[in-house]
Amino acid sequence: MTSLRGATSPSLTPWPTADYRSRRWTQSVAVREQQFDSSNPAMSFPCLDAQEAKSASLSTRSMSSGPEPSYTTGQHENFHCKTPLLLDWGGVLPEFDVAYETWGTLNADKSNAILLHTGLSASSHAHSTPTNPKNGWWEKFIGPGAPLDTNKYYIICTNVIGGCYGSTGPSSIDPSDSKRYATRFPILTIEDMVRAQFRLLDSLGIQKLHASVGSSMGGMLSLASGVLFPERMGRLVSISGCARSHPYSIAMRHTQRQVLMMDPNWQRGFYYDSIPPHHGMKLAREIATVTYRSGPEWENRFGRKRADPSKQPALCPDFLIETYLDHAGEKFCLEYDANSLLYVSKAMDLFDLGYAHQVATRARRVQNQKRMVLGSMERNGASCSLALPDKPYEEQPATLSSLTPMNEPATDDSADGPPQDLIRGMSPLKDHPVLVMGVASDILFPAWQQREIAETLRAAGNQNVEHVELGEDISLFGHDTFLLDLENIGGRVGKFLG
Amino acid sequence: MTSLRGATSPSLTPWPTADYRSRRWTQSVAVREQQFDSSNPAMSFPCLDAQEAKSASLSTRSMSSGPEPSYTTGQHENFHCKTPLLLDWGGVLPEFDVAYETWGTLNADKSNAILLHTGLSASSHAHSTPTNPKNGWWEKFIGPGAPLDTNKYYIICTNVIGGCYGSTGPSSIDPSDSKRYATRFPILTIEDMVRAQFRLLDSLGIQKLHASVGSSMGGMLSLASGVLFPERMGRLVSISGCARSHPYSIAMRHTQRQVLMMDPNWQRGFYYDSIPPHHGMKLAREIATVTYRSGPEWENRFGRKRADPSKQPALCPDFLIETYLDHAGEKFCLEYDANSLLYVSKAMDLFDLGYAHQVATRARRVQNQKRMVLGSMERNGASCSLALPDKPYEEQPATLSSLTPMNEPATDDSADGPPQDLIRGMSPLKDHPVLVMGVASDILFPAWQQREIAETLRAAGNQNVEHVELGEDISLFGHDTFLLDLENIGGRVGKFLG
Repeated sequence: MTSLRGATSPSLTPWPTADYRSRRWTQSVAVREQQFDSSNPAMSFPCLDAQEAKSASLSTRSMSSGPEPSYTTGQHENFHCKTPLLLDWGGVLPEFDVAYETWGTLNADKSNAILLHTGLSASSHAHSTPTNPKNGWWEKFIGPGAPLDTNKYYIICTNVIGGCYGSTGPSSIDPSDSKRYATRFPILTIEDMVRAQFRLLDSLGIQKLHASVGSSMGGMLSLASGVLFPERMGRLVSISGCARSHPYSIAMRHTQRQVLMMDPNWQRGFYYDSIPPHHGMKLAREIATVTYRSGPEWENRFGRKRADPSKQPALCPDFLIETYLDHAGEKFCLEYDANSLLYVSKAMDLFDLGYAHQVATRARRVQNQKRMVLGSMERNGASCSLALPDKPYEEQPATLSSLTPMNEPATDDSADGPPQDLIRGMSPLKDHPVLVMGVASDILFPAWQQREIAETLRAAGNQNVEHVELGEDISLFGHDTFLLDLENIGGRVGKFLG
Repeated sequence: MTSLRGATSPSLTPWPTADYRSRRWTQSVAVREQQFDSSNPAMSFPCLDAQEAKSASLSTRSMSSGPEPSYTTGQHENFHCKTPLLLDWGGVLPEFDVAYETWGTLNADKSNAILLHTGLSASSHAHSTPTNPKNGWWEKFIGPGAPLDTNKYYIICTNVIGGCYGSTGPSSIDPSDSKRYATRFPILTIEDMVRAQFRLLDSLGIQKLHASVGSSMGGMLSLASGVLFPERMGRLVSISGCARSHPYSIAMRHTQRQVLMMDPNWQRGFYYDSIPPHHGMKLAREIATVTYRSGPEWENRFGRKRADPSKQPALCPDFLIETYLDHAGEKFCLEYDANSLLYVSKAMDLFDLGYAHQVATRARRVQNQKRMVLGSMERNGASCSLALPDKPYEEQPATLSSLTPMNEPATDDSADGPPQDLIRGMSPLKDHPVLVMGVASDILFPAWQQREIAETLRAAGNQNVEHVELGEDISLFGHDTFLLDLENIGGRVGKFLG
């Protein structure tokens, strides 16, 4: 029965050694319920059937009622800014919208505002409003007596630029040619999002925030707000975020972007007149969902249960954990714009509060600003151009001074403790009370990344850093803990805000 | 600047508020090197260009030289078995091949054989051979004086059934109709793979193994060998494996399968005459690669380095970690059969050494075996059919007796310690010396899963369990440690085998 066999590709001619006995035997098995030509029945793929049906239905809808879908979470306020926004990587938004919602009342001296930052795909709808009574994504964390206490504070939440819930993003119309930006939208950074938010604060007359609060990407935005505008910042909360994106998180987001871009319906971003890449979005969300919770939590919730143990195992979703992921992806796939996912996820990758990175960005901005003005002068003559922004869109000079070299030169990472470059980069926050929270079961923003934030701030001389890490005894909900744990997350935030 | 804005989909008509000033301003910026109609240049997608070029080239190759690719790692031995193999979920292989390679010499009483099991996608080529001098996947672990010492032992490594490196799998020809199985291949289990391996051992006249050794999926196979054939097993090594698949691992494999199945070239498995789903395979491998190493190792190796810092950030691979993943996916995408990946990965999900699962499987097998015989009689008359297998393909009676109820009744999981059902299921291994190894930085088969194996065996009464966990001070290589750490993995294995 043993023979030396060469490294050849399988032959397509009839199986040479298939003898009569085993063929007849096979048929006798196969015939028992139905006549198959093959040894075993072909597998069915209900999950692919569903995707094809969905594409067909979206195609019909698109033809009958125009491009779909519209991304919205309902009524919100809109800040429209006609002053161009220069972005960190040289792109420009000639004008832009920031969708926002507010809760509580701004006091007379406008000193009680809290800027609440969102995660990647959330809208400004953090809490229900009179015009949109639907529950928000932090419903229980906001309200009279809640951690973000509307009896005391005026809470503002915005949809980030790059998003699709009312703020300018890839699905918005480019004013230059009245077509949607799609992937002509420029590369964004977390700091660009912050600049847009502070234009809104300007328009509301809010000079200084009582606090900035955010989780996940919001935790990045919160830190970035303080580093860009330290003099406009009171207290600062960063939950399940980081001071710079690490390769494992970049890797996880990379796979999501790649999967989405593989969907033929994505069409390099120009899908707004046809079927959106719902399949790619669904799978990208499934990958993301894997990183939002933790293994032990799933162990408790799903274990090895199959969705229907009476059925044959299948390559389509089969175990309960698979149907859970499938459902999470399905729910999301038409709720968020695919291009927004790409740009905002990329902005997270690019996030780095290190000093060298800030200096390089600043140099690039100065260069691009000159070009903008020069370009404008070339087109409009040497006179003072109307195109010049009518209010400053750069950080305040105070920020610049905070970036001047410290006494110690920047060195390579020390063996122990946070790197000097990061300490220097985060030094604008050295005088602010900061609450940093992390969750031990988080695999997307592991707890050591929040420890890094706290240690870096302390190393920069900050005496007012509170660092809280929720152990696995307290939460197995991983990254999602910030959405779920009112007592431990909300409680500490409320206490910190005072 | 603030207005209440309704929840409407973005209009496709020209931007109503785009005033002259900002439009001209935009153009003045854009014009500096090139005339764009949009505010910013469109993004380029070299990674998609590459995929399209690859598809085109594969299409040409397919038309000129027949279906591609052939999956092979070179010359190997082949065991062809004409006795049908009934699978755990009712499928049948009327006949099958097992590709294998050996190193060392089988002694006179055939008592020095070690069966070495592979991970998901590995071939039988664990070490170079005279006919295939290419390095194997465990090259340094096998040889004279090596952990698997060829001066003492006769090492056998097989490609699993379901694979594509010579053993029967979805890319093989179904003898019933001389076409490739594709997704007409039946659902497989880890135990089915073991049964095929033991047919090979039968043909080699090896009644009892000195040892069974495996890592990752091989760690599952190694345990399953001992549970199915305890009387044919000497010592047992299981590295970075588990006693049953857990939901987090199932989730990670689920996303890989889904991504692969989304590739239009996959064609529900029937791609052998055209372009293989190389893009889906590439992305599936990228996701897998994320789980093979650890965050801290990438932190050291890649940090936040970009592949080319002088370039604008891109949605295609950009950071070094992304180009690393891209390369890993690209390297793999034509080296392994997509359908094999689906079936073998599914078999891993289905793995469960719990007692209840074994009992249910056994009952199903008895039922299916009866049907097979009955079907055979119906077709061939009531006389003893030639179609009956000429050797038993069920486990030995010894295994059956080891599955009879123990003194303690099966209960729900105890709060502390391993579940009774698993203790009972693994009790066939209660008298074998077992080495269980795990790696603290492993995220795919976390260290607690190997602890579970060791604790379960001890709870079943095994006094000869050695459990070794490599801490993060020893290895940051995560799941891949078993391929890399000759000193700590190899050293312990060599010592254990004696």
